[in-house]
Amino acid sequence: MTPDEFRKRGKEVIDWIADYMEGVEEYPVLSRVKPGDIRARLPEHPPATGEDFDRVVADLDRVIMPGITHWQSPGFHAFFSANASGPAILGDLVSSGLGVQGMLWATSPACTELETHVMDWLVEMLGLPPSFLSSGAGGGVIQDSASSATLTALIAAREKATRGAGNHTGNPGNLVAYTSTQAHSSIEKGIRIAGIGSDNLRSIEVDAAFAMQPAALEQAIQKDLAAGRRPFFVCATVGTTSSTAIDPVGEIGEICRRHQMWLHVDAALAGTAALLAEQRWIHEGVELADSYVFNPHKWMLTNFDCSAFFVADRTALIGALSVLPEYLRNEASASGAVIDYRDWQIPLGRRFRALKLWFVIRHYGVEGLQAFVREHLRLTKLLVSWVEGDDNFELAAPAPVNLVCFRHIGGDDVNQRIMDRVNESGEIYITHTKLNGMLTLRMSIGQTHTAERHVRRAWELIRGASG
Amino acid sequence: MTPDEFRKRGKEVIDWIADYMEGVEEYPVLSRVKPGDIRARLPEHPPATGEDFDRVVADLDRVIMPGITHWQSPGFHAFFSANASGPAILGDLVSSGLGVQGMLWATSPACTELETHVMDWLVEMLGLPPSFLSSGAGGGVIQDSASSATLTALIAAREKATRGAGNHTGNPGNLVAYTSTQAHSSIEKGIRIAGIGSDNLRSIEVDAAFAMQPAALEQAIQKDLAAGRRPFFVCATVGTTSSTAIDPVGEIGEICRRHQMWLHVDAALAGTAALLAEQRWIHEGVELADSYVFNPHKWMLTNFDCSAFFVADRTALIGALSVLPEYLRNEASASGAVIDYRDWQIPLGRRFRALKLWFVIRHYGVEGLQAFVREHLRLTKLLVSWVEGDDNFELAAPAPVNLVCFRHIGGDDVNQRIMDRVNESGEIYITHTKLNGMLTLRMSIGQTHTAERHVRRAWELIRGASG
Repeated sequence: MTPDEFRKRGKEVIDWIADYMEGVEEYPVLSRVKPGDIRARLPEHPPATGEDFDRVVADLDRVIMPGITHWQSPGFHAFFSANASGPAILGDLVSSGLGVQGMLWATSPACTELETHVMDWLVEMLGLPPSFLSSGAGGGVIQDSASSATLTALIAAREKATRGAGNHTGNPGNLVAYTSTQAHSSIEKGIRIAGIGSDNLRSIEVDAAFAMQPAALEQAIQKDLAAGRRPFFVCATVGTTSSTAIDPVGEIGEICRRHQMWLHVDAALAGTAALLAEQRWIHEGVELADSYVFNPHKWMLTNFDCSAFFVADRTALIGALSVLPEYLRNEASASGAVIDYRDWQIPLGRRFRALKLWFVIRHYGVEGLQAFVREHLRLTKLLVSWVEGDDNFELAAPAPVNLVCFRHIGGDDVNQRIMDRVNESGEIYITHTKLNGMLTLRMSIGQTHTAERHVRRAWELIRGASG
Repeated sequence: MTPDEFRKRGKEVIDWIADYMEGVEEYPVLSRVKPGDIRARLPEHPPATGEDFDRVVADLDRVIMPGITHWQSPGFHAFFSANASGPAILGDLVSSGLGVQGMLWATSPACTELETHVMDWLVEMLGLPPSFLSSGAGGGVIQDSASSATLTALIAAREKATRGAGNHTGNPGNLVAYTSTQAHSSIEKGIRIAGIGSDNLRSIEVDAAFAMQPAALEQAIQKDLAAGRRPFFVCATVGTTSSTAIDPVGEIGEICRRHQMWLHVDAALAGTAALLAEQRWIHEGVELADSYVFNPHKWMLTNFDCSAFFVADRTALIGALSVLPEYLRNEASASGAVIDYRDWQIPLGRRFRALKLWFVIRHYGVEGLQAFVREHLRLTKLLVSWVEGDDNFELAAPAPVNLVCFRHIGGDDVNQRIMDRVNESGEIYITHTKLNGMLTLRMSIGQTHTAERHVRRAWELIRGASG
């Protein structure tokens, strides 16, 4: 494809996306296709010769769109949002166009230095501890997901706990990790991948607000110590996936300090709320964390993938992940004056992901981003007030950020029916969890374009579906 | 940013990228900035209020471009190419615009089904074994990198070798893995991450062509068995990073079968060559592999990230990586009729990466892609003939695909000087490795727009720099 053809086709694709943005509310939010429907529209064999690009774009509408669940619809209230925005999409486009690899500083210095710089900006924007700044012993890196960041934290913690032996001898031995019963599935997945074994992950009981109980954590650690095991890692959650519960990070951090354990804080969704000074209480105690992750790709208008991972001391991280073959040696790396982000992550290769974050922060400004978050929090409180004001519904958990967990008092079957009906309507998409053993509806309010009328309509649909 | 503003700004960015494509040869291929130069051009604090988008785009030229090493320049001969193309960039753009998460089939059926479909196409296009097709017990998945794919293979192999116990008990115990001395650094990195420990990775000797010696592999396995250890995994390489050596996969596979070990084949760069029937010999024996990876993002015109990972039996993979919390449960998954790719990879979230691969295959057609690879192979042979015809230079390794390893006969200092000088010229960028202890120049020929005149000019520069 020549630059001229790219110029022409690129503008067509931009128009296609702009049209999609304008018309997104006309699609059913949750795709209605059945398993196999999309594949049935695709030819069995790849084309021998090139096709006209018009046909490719036409097939987006014919083949792909029926199979899309619209995460960018203002009626998307499922899971957590993965919100995008114009500047993020365009920053990502520049990244694709430049096509650079940021594995080493030398392979595109701007890719590394812009990333370090915007990660430092994020520390300032969220009021995170200065230990996470690149100017000290720590620093930030963009990863693909909180799952990968948590795995990276586990590997660094193992390195530190075993003084490097875990990397070499395998058999991490009797290491034990702790998280709450409400923690994300990626913690167990990471524990498995790292070879620590899910038998060595303790699920700590939570209180009535679904937050980890520090006393139960201390007790579990004491029990493991008495059995000759080696407690080494705690993952606290700021905003659990089920109900956005906020673990008491300060108290957990004190326990970690006492036992020389690594504290990782998973604030994947909720971290963005700290853009607002009045929400910074969610990060109380984070200064005790060895590592921290939040996802600008969830609620900060930066499209996937963009997970911001910070460490307070990069030594263990690099010690665990650096393998230096001859073909990657270069003068800048040897000088020690630069960051090579390949040593801060699982893969070797890496995209220029800082561009989209830079575009977003500059286009909206800090105050612009704050306005989005503030509005979503206002809408959340509004929905909470409606649930509280309706005798047929009850709140199932506190709503400290932008998720409302609630249920009809009629029991699991009624709630399942409500969820199925509203999702079938095509106007909204909500998902569920279980809290205290009961099926609970989750309504997340974080999509870029969700406005009051969408939340109002969602509540109307939910109430209507309960009859 | 409204759809209308996106329409306007998007077209400006498309023009910016098209201009970049047209002018890419005017930039020095290897960036000339010094550590800290890029950060010095950035404001210390994030902007409080939004900036005009014109300023953001202007800063691409002012701030970013000096710090770019131009992987998309036809003079880029370093490492391996990470080539892009117009349709790939546009496919990626659509993915950003749709902003869907493909973690579950239900979260966008088209994301999953198109991926399964194009991965099946790749099996056909490369003549890979039918065991990798989704219609049988295996299947393919797009991952971010071969590093992650290899780690995933290791986890699946551990699951199989320990009948699932490795996931739960940790302490994989006396498991031992094998690869050649020439294998990619990601193998050791994966072994570390998986908690197997680099002490339990054996580096098997290679022959004069830098390919693994099966007899040495068998010997190492016997030695470990005699010591009561548990050989479980071999990574064979089709196209090593240093010199594109091709391990004898068939012989290695027979050894793996005999000892019930998992065979993973890393064809990250070279796999693409199998688009050509006359190059399919590189895959001799791949039908014995349990898993296989090649990167369309290296040499198949599909921009990073797009690593194609196949398994012959998906059971161990899913068994190792599936953790199912309540909030991800859904009817389609429970039915067993769909693929949930979250269970095929490390992260939970995932982009719609199949779009760019689909765009590339349709725009160029199989024959169009073959033409690119055939031309790069022709240019490689041409360079080989020039090296062979010059008394001052010698080939350092066979060149079975698109990399030429060579050196000036004057020794390491002369070769270092040649590399430094040609890279300083700004016209080309080459890197080095060590083969048989000697500094060796590597010239990779795989960039989308590299034509004969570029290779000719590169050779002229290299010869000129030796004086």
